Amino acid sequence: MTASPFIIVFALYDRVTQLDFTGPHEVFWRLPGAQCVVASANGGDIQADSGLTITHVQRLADIPHADLLCVPGGFGVIEAIEDADFMREVRRLAGGARYVTSVCNGSVVLGAAGLLRGKRAACHWAWRDLPPPFGAIADEDRVVQDGYLITGGGVTAGIDMALSVMADIAGVAHAQSVQLGIEYAPAPPFDCGRPERAPPPILQAVTTRLDRLRPDRHAAVQRVAEKL
Amino acid sequence: MTASPFIIVFALYDRVTQLDFTGPHEVFWRLPGAQCVVASANGGDIQADSGLTITHVQRLADIPHADLLCVPGGFGVIEAIEDADFMREVRRLAGGARYVTSVCNGSVVLGAAGLLRGKRAACHWAWRDLPPPFGAIADEDRVVQDGYLITGGGVTAGIDMALSVMADIAGVAHAQSVQLGIEYAPAPPFDCGRPERAPPPILQAVTTRLDRLRPDRHAAVQRVAEKL
Repeated sequence: MTASPFIIVFALYDRVTQLDFTGPHEVFWRLPGAQCVVASANGGDIQADSGLTITHVQRLADIPHADLLCVPGGFGVIEAIEDADFMREVRRLAGGARYVTSVCNGSVVLGAAGLLRGKRAACHWAWRDLPPPFGAIADEDRVVQDGYLITGGGVTAGIDMALSVMADIAGVAHAQSVQLGIEYAPAPPFDCGRPERAPPPILQAVTTRLDRLRPDRHAAVQRVAEKL
Repeated sequence: MTASPFIIVFALYDRVTQLDFTGPHEVFWRLPGAQCVVASANGGDIQADSGLTITHVQRLADIPHADLLCVPGGFGVIEAIEDADFMREVRRLAGGARYVTSVCNGSVVLGAAGLLRGKRAACHWAWRDLPPPFGAIADEDRVVQDGYLITGGGVTAGIDMALSVMADIAGVAHAQSVQLGIEYAPAPPFDCGRPERAPPPILQAVTTRLDRLRPDRHAAVQRVAEKL
């Protein structure tokens, strides 16, 4: 690690899903010599889709450089990809980063920034059809690495993604010590975290609910993809 | 579910570990009819031990009632158990709650509030010696239920705890649909999340670092336990 800090930027927007970035944030702030920055187009406060509000959020335009960029997903992702200020800063910071990462449908932002052409990328299982219009190759893995791009699946996949990236940056031993520190030996009460494992009625209910969002999301992706 | 919302209160304090409560928060806000409230002794902003700052935090004293109380852990837990205002409100809200929960060393707060006498409780693996001076029976399980008390192990155990409690409140099918929604099919890159699984040098390094905090934590627990 050099004397200058390793800058990790979380690019936030309103109605972000907070666990998409709070999971990786809890891992990454334990990287020696790193500085974690939360930022958005306008700075100030960011309200997550759950209502939780983060403050002291910096302006993306004020951040000269990111070594690692992390774009979380959220119900607000569709507004985010049509926000020219947000997208310009994501593109700029990604351009200078050693690692560009996303969690959940945050990969839609990377796609809309033109970063996923011909690249394999993960996404929340219900939204794996959204990155391909940007040239991405949908990948069902929980954590997908394609060069400097590391994308995670839905919400909780961010913790697995961050530990993988941590191992790459700081070595396996350090990533393991962080995993032990946050007691990450998950024991889900049910085996229901992926569509192929969920009981059909559960999958049906969740899909039906999310399908209501699908027309608007597809339309926004189409509009942005046409302009790329 | 009745017409009045099911009130879920997260009792925060400075230098809380944010993933201890952001994990359960991401689960619990998906409970139909629930209202999630983040609160602290003074309200306003709460800065986590990672530097992430939460705003619009309510004052615990302004909250008449909690159906579910969740106390996260953090590096600031020792200051928290000696904060008379914080502890009085935790005790009051726990007194009327249907579920009293904690994550990580948040169980030290429950102990200091006098709630764990003769009760089994989880804690972060490195701090399982802290609840027993308050009469608790240390339990190595990741999620421990003893009556209305449900306590989780370190940091990430909060997600497992919350899904278990969700199943109890709203039924297994709803908990499963939330698990699917947040794609909680964890795949840690290493098997290193508990002390008995970690390579000995990793365990040694983490223990050595945490042991520096041990004398102060034991002294504070002793002071508070004597006054109980």
